[in-house]
Amino acid sequence: MSLKGIRVIDLTRIISGPFCTQLLADFGADVIKIETPSGDPLRRQGKGRNGLSWYFASYNRNKRSVALDLRSPEGLEVLSDLVRDADVLVENFRAGVLADMGFSDQALEALNPRLVVCHISGFGADGPYAQRPSFDFIAQAMSGFMSVNGNRDDEPLRSGLPISDLVAGLYAALGVAATLAGPRENRRFQSVDVGLTDSLISLLSYMASDTLASGQPPERSGNDHPLVAPYGLFQTADTPIAIAPSNDMIYARLLKVLGREDLLTDPRFDTNEKRMADRRAIRAEIEPILLTEGSATWIERLNKGGVPTGPVMTVPEVLEDPQVRHRDMVLEVPHGAHGPVQMLGFPVKVAPDGCDIRHPAPELGEHGDAILSALGYSAARIADLRARGVLAAGSGEEAVRRG
Amino acid sequence: MSLKGIRVIDLTRIISGPFCTQLLADFGADVIKIETPSGDPLRRQGKGRNGLSWYFASYNRNKRSVALDLRSPEGLEVLSDLVRDADVLVENFRAGVLADMGFSDQALEALNPRLVVCHISGFGADGPYAQRPSFDFIAQAMSGFMSVNGNRDDEPLRSGLPISDLVAGLYAALGVAATLAGPRENRRFQSVDVGLTDSLISLLSYMASDTLASGQPPERSGNDHPLVAPYGLFQTADTPIAIAPSNDMIYARLLKVLGREDLLTDPRFDTNEKRMADRRAIRAEIEPILLTEGSATWIERLNKGGVPTGPVMTVPEVLEDPQVRHRDMVLEVPHGAHGPVQMLGFPVKVAPDGCDIRHPAPELGEHGDAILSALGYSAARIADLRARGVLAAGSGEEAVRRG
Repeated sequence: MSLKGIRVIDLTRIISGPFCTQLLADFGADVIKIETPSGDPLRRQGKGRNGLSWYFASYNRNKRSVALDLRSPEGLEVLSDLVRDADVLVENFRAGVLADMGFSDQALEALNPRLVVCHISGFGADGPYAQRPSFDFIAQAMSGFMSVNGNRDDEPLRSGLPISDLVAGLYAALGVAATLAGPRENRRFQSVDVGLTDSLISLLSYMASDTLASGQPPERSGNDHPLVAPYGLFQTADTPIAIAPSNDMIYARLLKVLGREDLLTDPRFDTNEKRMADRRAIRAEIEPILLTEGSATWIERLNKGGVPTGPVMTVPEVLEDPQVRHRDMVLEVPHGAHGPVQMLGFPVKVAPDGCDIRHPAPELGEHGDAILSALGYSAARIADLRARGVLAAGSGEEAVRRG
Repeated sequence: MSLKGIRVIDLTRIISGPFCTQLLADFGADVIKIETPSGDPLRRQGKGRNGLSWYFASYNRNKRSVALDLRSPEGLEVLSDLVRDADVLVENFRAGVLADMGFSDQALEALNPRLVVCHISGFGADGPYAQRPSFDFIAQAMSGFMSVNGNRDDEPLRSGLPISDLVAGLYAALGVAATLAGPRENRRFQSVDVGLTDSLISLLSYMASDTLASGQPPERSGNDHPLVAPYGLFQTADTPIAIAPSNDMIYARLLKVLGREDLLTDPRFDTNEKRMADRRAIRAEIEPILLTEGSATWIERLNKGGVPTGPVMTVPEVLEDPQVRHRDMVLEVPHGAHGPVQMLGFPVKVAPDGCDIRHPAPELGEHGDAILSALGYSAARIADLRARGVLAAGSGEEAVRRG
């Protein structure tokens, strides 16, 4: 709860931005989600129960909601008042859209000279492609990620997860948190700018450094490790297992567990280079032994022998796994009339001041009255804004019907 | 430079931990990398020039190095003194190893009641699998990531990048930064615990929420989006392009650019569900038009028409791309006798107090004398530690020869 007392104005929707602000909210920040009167489109995506998208619920826990018409001057005025009173503003409009609404960095700094504003966009806030529309898939294609994902002889492959959205959200949360960790007394306006493509490029790791050093492009290598053999998925008597002997010491342990220490000095296999040169040959020595027992036996024996080994798990298997449950990676959150909702837990465990669920994802506009009252708006003014459609939805009851 | 003045003792090696501490160093923290006398194994991995691994150089910039024999009591004493003087300790030993060295959380809190300690491990600090050895590939297998990555009819596929290592490093940096952002005055000891598997699970996003809501496992869908059609790679007159019309509005824009607005009301294709049901049918309408022009033409036309579209780029293409260069995602850092080193830039752009390169990755043990002197060690004591091999390497000269 290290971000307790930090107020975040959240103009984001869909996934990248809401993931960022959810991380901040989980760490204790008071996140005020500003939605259009029709709500974050995520409210209508993903599978749900009892009129609630579990996708939306899991990415918006610990947030409060105000439904505001930002096309009206009065709506923009409310936003200005919220910004004056906040520590952080996060947005994931296309680059430049927020400035067109009257909230350039300069205008924001004038409103609140201590604000941290965080922009999340496809290509970042500037550069030749900044104005292009972009989504996760485009960032996957243009970051080089796809070029190294997939099997050698197939086409470049997107990640099965919206990886650039999520990594950009994570970097944005890091940028905000690191900025907030700076000196309190003299804090001045800071602008944090995160692009989906930049974010995924930053994960190219040795693929980038090797390319820069050698000029040679990396290759797609499927389940083979590009630099190590043996390594990958191996058949057993039942299901395949993942084995990762990432250096010579662990390779030696693998041979010991398999009773094939003779291979250590076999001139065909005595260096990683030789084993890489003909991956099938070393596999042909190892796999027949693995086929004599089931996966559970090998996972136990190999891990005991110091060889990282595991099953390839489906998502339902993961969510039921004893380790995953022990780590509270699946939580059940009461959601009023919608019933209990299961969602993923906190990826970062902090003690003693850890993350927690303070309240479930909000109904659309659920906290409009409370938040505007706290800003000093009179009941009459709030009623007027509501009557004119600037402030939408409102009571929990109404929002439940809309949801 | 928001973490300026924060001192981090860095007991990590290889990739996940060093990525975490590099992010903290880029934000301005003073990161003291403790290496064994033989150095981080990464010094000997990846392609290099002039005796320097560019992989190591890119993951250790802005850090200082002390080479310390932690198997000796004197080495552990030096570590204790460093911890007393620090704000943060980061480690990525196997769970429990640091405690076995005498540095349990309890012992660390006794040394420094304001310390933030961050543990990075395969399965996290506790639970039934905590003692298992683990690497990125095992986390990919056991998080469900592989089960949703790849083509429908192929085997589950690892990501081409060490994605769980990197995401765990990123979460660890976030956990540290968020904790440091908490109240200064009353800061108390905090333990941050990040597991590779938990980290990747937390990115399952709608794959997890949909599974929890419906009980149905997600499927691998290759380059098809699991929820939208058309979407994916499409052939043009030259190279394939990625097109991401993720909702009906953008689908309509796509048809407009292609001159096929007639399809909008075609009863075979008038809902996303119908288009999903036979992806090949809608592709058969669209692809022949795309084949009439080259990729550059379509990328320009479609983006102009509001349809996110891009090329599938190789890593060398990415590193030369004008947008990537504009965003300073490739930096050149002087490395003394090793010559200039190219490496990836900062994924988070902050202004005015942004990240910068203060110094290149250190030679092994380069800063031993300076750091111990600053702790109050006399020249005689430092010479003695060096004579007995507790403090290894030393002057820049010597380290260059070893490098």
